[in-house]
Amino acid sequence: MRPSGRAPDEMRAITIETGFTKHAEGSCLVSFGDTRVLCTASVERNVPPWMRGKGEGWVTGEYSMLPRATHTRGQREAAKGKQSGRTQEIQRLIGRSLRAVVDLRKLGERQITLDCDVIQADGGTRTASISGAWVALRLAVNGMIANGEIKDDPIAAQVAAISCGIFQGNPVLDLDYDEDSNADADANFVLISGGQIAEVQATAEGATYDEEGLLRLLRLGRIGCDRIFAAQLDAVR
Amino acid sequence: MRPSGRAPDEMRAITIETGFTKHAEGSCLVSFGDTRVLCTASVERNVPPWMRGKGEGWVTGEYSMLPRATHTRGQREAAKGKQSGRTQEIQRLIGRSLRAVVDLRKLGERQITLDCDVIQADGGTRTASISGAWVALRLAVNGMIANGEIKDDPIAAQVAAISCGIFQGNPVLDLDYDEDSNADADANFVLISGGQIAEVQATAEGATYDEEGLLRLLRLGRIGCDRIFAAQLDAVR
Amino acid sequence: MRPSGRAPDEMRAITIETGFTKHAEGSCLVSFGDTRVLCTASVERNVPPWMRGKGEGWVTGEYSMLPRATHTRGQREAAKGKQSGRTQEIQRLIGRSLRAVVDLRKLGERQITLDCDVIQADGGTRTASISGAWVALRLAVNGMIANGEIKDDPIAAQVAAISCGIFQGNPVLDLDYDEDSNADADANFVLISGGQIAEVQATAEGATYDEEGLLRLLRLGRIGCDRIFAAQLDAVR
Amino acid sequence: MRPSGRAPDEMRAITIETGFTKHAEGSCLVSFGDTRVLCTASVERNVPPWMRGKGEGWVTGEYSMLPRATHTRGQREAAKGKQSGRTQEIQRLIGRSLRAVVDLRKLGERQITLDCDVIQADGGTRTASISGAWVALRLAVNGMIANGEIKDDPIAAQVAAISCGIFQGNPVLDLDYDEDSNADADANFVLISGGQIAEVQATAEGATYDEEGLLRLLRLGRIGCDRIFAAQLDAVR
Amino acid sequence: MRPSGRAPDEMRAITIETGFTKHAEGSCLVSFGDTRVLCTASVERNVPPWMRGKGEGWVTGEYSMLPRATHTRGQREAAKGKQSGRTQEIQRLIGRSLRAVVDLRKLGERQITLDCDVIQADGGTRTASISGAWVALRLAVNGMIANGEIKDDPIAAQVAAISCGIFQGNPVLDLDYDEDSNADADANFVLISGGQIAEVQATAEGATYDEEGLLRLLRLGRIGCDRIFAAQLDAVR
Amino acid sequence: MRPSGRAPDEMRAITIETGFTKHAEGSCLVSFGDTRVLCTASVERNVPPWMRGKGEGWVTGEYSMLPRATHTRGQREAAKGKQSGRTQEIQRLIGRSLRAVVDLRKLGERQITLDCDVIQADGGTRTASISGAWVALRLAVNGMIANGEIKDDPIAAQVAAISCGIFQGNPVLDLDYDEDSNADADANFVLISGGQIAEVQATAEGATYDEEGLLRLLRLGRIGCDRIFAAQLDAVR
Repeated sequence: MRPSGRAPDEMRAITIETGFTKHAEGSCLVSFGDTRVLCTASVERNVPPWMRGKGEGWVTGEYSMLPRATHTRGQREAAKGKQSGRTQEIQRLIGRSLRAVVDLRKLGERQITLDCDVIQADGGTRTASISGAWVALRLAVNGMIANGEIKDDPIAAQVAAISCGIFQGNPVLDLDYDEDSNADADANFVLISGGQIAEVQATAEGATYDEEGLLRLLRLGRIGCDRIFAAQLDAVR
Repeated sequence: MRPSGRAPDEMRAITIETGFTKHAEGSCLVSFGDTRVLCTASVERNVPPWMRGKGEGWVTGEYSMLPRATHTRGQREAAKGKQSGRTQEIQRLIGRSLRAVVDLRKLGERQITLDCDVIQADGGTRTASISGAWVALRLAVNGMIANGEIKDDPIAAQVAAISCGIFQGNPVLDLDYDEDSNADADANFVLISGGQIAEVQATAEGATYDEEGLLRLLRLGRIGCDRIFAAQLDAVR
Repeated sequence: MRPSGRAPDEMRAITIETGFTKHAEGSCLVSFGDTRVLCTASVERNVPPWMRGKGEGWVTGEYSMLPRATHTRGQREAAKGKQSGRTQEIQRLIGRSLRAVVDLRKLGERQITLDCDVIQADGGTRTASISGAWVALRLAVNGMIANGEIKDDPIAAQVAAISCGIFQGNPVLDLDYDEDSNADADANFVLISGGQIAEVQATAEGATYDEEGLLRLLRLGRIGCDRIFAAQLDAVR
Repeated sequence: MRPSGRAPDEMRAITIETGFTKHAEGSCLVSFGDTRVLCTASVERNVPPWMRGKGEGWVTGEYSMLPRATHTRGQREAAKGKQSGRTQEIQRLIGRSLRAVVDLRKLGERQITLDCDVIQADGGTRTASISGAWVALRLAVNGMIANGEIKDDPIAAQVAAISCGIFQGNPVLDLDYDEDSNADADANFVLISGGQIAEVQATAEGATYDEEGLLRLLRLGRIGCDRIFAAQLDAVR
Repeated sequence: MRPSGRAPDEMRAITIETGFTKHAEGSCLVSFGDTRVLCTASVERNVPPWMRGKGEGWVTGEYSMLPRATHTRGQREAAKGKQSGRTQEIQRLIGRSLRAVVDLRKLGERQITLDCDVIQADGGTRTASISGAWVALRLAVNGMIANGEIKDDPIAAQVAAISCGIFQGNPVLDLDYDEDSNADADANFVLISGGQIAEVQATAEGATYDEEGLLRLLRLGRIGCDRIFAAQLDAVR
Repeated sequence: MRPSGRAPDEMRAITIETGFTKHAEGSCLVSFGDTRVLCTASVERNVPPWMRGKGEGWVTGEYSMLPRATHTRGQREAAKGKQSGRTQEIQRLIGRSLRAVVDLRKLGERQITLDCDVIQADGGTRTASISGAWVALRLAVNGMIANGEIKDDPIAAQVAAISCGIFQGNPVLDLDYDEDSNADADANFVLISGGQIAEVQATAEGATYDEEGLLRLLRLGRIGCDRIFAAQLDAVR
């Protein structure tokens, strides 16, 4: 029995509110239950130094939690003077995941930065971030196509992410904080709309798991990502 | 004529949405027109080292802009590894302003941190922050009184802040970004509900101003803060 | 009664010793009583990146306290690895105040940095810094005019600063440390020789103040700045 | 055909030279072909602050590359003043992997730090680090048992790690640098001697992969880890 | 022929102005020609953590150049966020040199920090710093003896430092900036009043030197330090 | 009697294993007894900004201790976010020492970085670093001559370094950790194969020393460096 009363393969409510901020070329507030993340896509004419002159673009991600997104207040990373290992790990994952569906040559020498700022956390902030970032990216690229900046659509597919885990011995989909902090294993799947896998990160916590366990989690992940793919399409329509 | 078509003493629409996040002891999303700031109040049992053992509490503020709160994306301070002088100046102002209406002895050895995170910026982010922070603080203290943590209300009055400026030769109230970036003088007033002044910061930009100009700005500031005091009361009711 | 026995509108002795160091293009050691600040003006051919190619110059300030300028030794900011919020706030104020009287176009693409290093502190270090920085700047610009580097004098007026406060209920001029640490309100005025105001920063400490209080402090500030303007002229003659 | 001429399921030569340094409680120099990592285990009586008083120990990892471990010299992280996101990601993985086989209660209030310093890099540095760190840990714990510091062996099993990838369309085991920099997908498996999985990290690079691809990589990973488990046992015997 | 016209064994004028600042327990402004350093001694009840509970004190040094102490303005270390290698090397030397003549047991659990801030630089700032720091230390300790804080004088002897070098083939004493920047070899001697050596740092620059050269420089160093010892005694009398 | 049983002028065994890593243009693992340092020379086409366009090269050193090179584990400097004063002092010494024997004009606009990473420490790490760095440099330059990159050999002589000290009243050569931590005086000599001195750093620790003591240490230093010169020649042959 899950603390939330959900079925093992039941996701939390997903909502995606597009155009949440007015300055960004694309933006949305994505919610997976009580987890809420503001995702913005910013288009700049400036690629990183090591990309210059190649005629290609770059897509990158940044991630942060507001200090009181969590149960107890966390110290602001800007005040500490550095980003935690966790933050860096997550923002590298966001960038990698989005680049998996973007043709950088079609983007031209432009950088799109996907900022994912967690307004409220209740488990699954990195997967909500990736899922929402795709929407912000799609909206920004739509704008660039509409105003003639680029011609060929550089986005080849949708990408979405979901966490699964083994909670009290059972594989469950879309862990909330109560489950996440007590799970025996925790897996994040980043999947592509055509059925391919962009990334798997599966970690034993306390207990370990085997091949069968991994596959059962992956199957749950597919169920979840299909739900997210549909919500993304609704949002950008 | 103001770019927004507002009268010189006309404020933008103020909205204060309380309970915007679920973990903070008090929170609101405050909007002055298109400027939107998430303010949270976090109560901790831990005062700073130099306050310990005095039986008094502390109230402090932190401030940040999300990277794409502005027209063009700003680099994340956590990534740069330090907070700008502007950020530090504003967060010191927030803390000082709120402490002007709090009796720290009545708070007991607790710290309340007011986090003001700018979701969208269109001028006046520091004044919206202070005005919203009071609401978050009021809600947090109401909770502490309700659950018996403290008995005497440590909040002696309301505090609000507004910016005024001289735009194309005329004193105007509540500058938006278009006005702010072209104003000849810029003043921020932090006022207390009983009529007292907590802080004045008035700076010439390009042109300078005289005593009469300062007083005209202060009078506009009073009009603005009276509007905010009313909105605060509505919000916490 | 003031701890120093001064009348409410009586300043401490002001001395300005020009040419205190030999390398700087302009320099002075300014004293307001026991507060002593070394101000140097350094002229460089290099403007900040965001100013380049505009044909304009830049004037900026930096501020620091020597570790034992104060009653008890403070940790060196270079050893801590960052400048405090207070330091940044003050150095931003110094730069803004001097720019209020300089025509940056007449300066050409040059940067003048005003370094204000507090040798000994007894209240009013930021106002002594601004007042001395003007002298260092004037001397540096005189030298540039004398050697033909620039033709039109970019300095339009004098700028000076003084602190005032409400001490034991009475408005007083030029607070020393004993008064400053016990004042009910503290105001810094940056005034321009023609009668205009460059900046007002007035803060309630413990008690608050009203419009009448602000005006009384401003009138004291005018008395003080007139004294400083005279001392500046004597010094640069 | 692999650049090295190896068969798809053929590992590079593994050597583990124990006792490589004299001060550490456990140490080895582990080589996977030309990748060489010095792993040391340091036992300290001091657990991190958030672990104190629980009667449990902690196992953590640190990772670094010597500046010229790679083809071109990399800047020293100590000189840059911060660890890269990649470094932090790897050292978090090392710690998590080792903790998967350690009973922290049996360790008592002690911290064991596993330092993995890459002397020479040719692909697979993180997996060699984890595999060598287990040997250093085993030796350190053997010493603690031998001198009576602890009684019950806190190490429940062996842990090893290996990278696999899809290179020119074929799943291959133990990627060297030439393969790693051109692989279509890259997976790191951290496996436990009893058959369980501690961690899977599988990332598409350029191409993506599907469930079948993931399983084929995992099967190669098992072959590799079995080879490493044997080498570890030889080394600690 | 030296640029200054001095004889090879001729020092620049030495002046030591004691009591230069009022807050420090001991202070002086020391000048070696145009090199001027403010030295303050601060007594604190607090020894560093690794010294606590031993009943011994500690003597340490800190060093900084004001930004415009030099011909061209240097960036402020506090703004850069770190102290240069040169600064750290010099402040370690200052501390070590002073500790060579202090009995830390007689000091009790107190720390004396010698801050050496270079107001104006013309070569020899580290040697002027050490020589002036001894005066500041002597004055601070005299005060502690006078007010009964300590009984036995912990200062066993005088310590002074001087630079010598080989300039255009000739050994010369007390290099100024013009000589220092063109010297073939540069040596700093820290000598103790009884004839002993506390520290020698001799470096070839361009040319190298031999044993005979080293001894000739050391003999010049003795001449210089004897002059400084006399000036120190005059200053503290 | 020395703890190791060595005669006063007896060095520890010196071994120099060249080609220790495959990527560096030159490398060796140098051992002075149990002190082992990996030295690599990296040739880059890029000189520091302040050297550009002069047609000259640059030689610089970097130094680090692996965290568990020592008896107790030291915190990683990359994790602390800054290099210690000791590290900076040593790496400046390494660079200066090697530059003493290199003609930078003959090097052309290239930088050679000598990385000295201490694998195991038992006293004398900085002198082993300098001595090994010369071998790495020699090998790298040999390669550049062999492949025709440069024609004239820029290395004019050998350079080596050794520590000496006064231990229990007696001058001894090549201090190990037990001696170093109890020595009354500690001197590091950097000598050039033709008989010249590149650098002397002699420090009193506890006791002080006189001219005669300095010369006796220098004579021991010559004995030690002659041994190292021979070992260097053997290694590069």
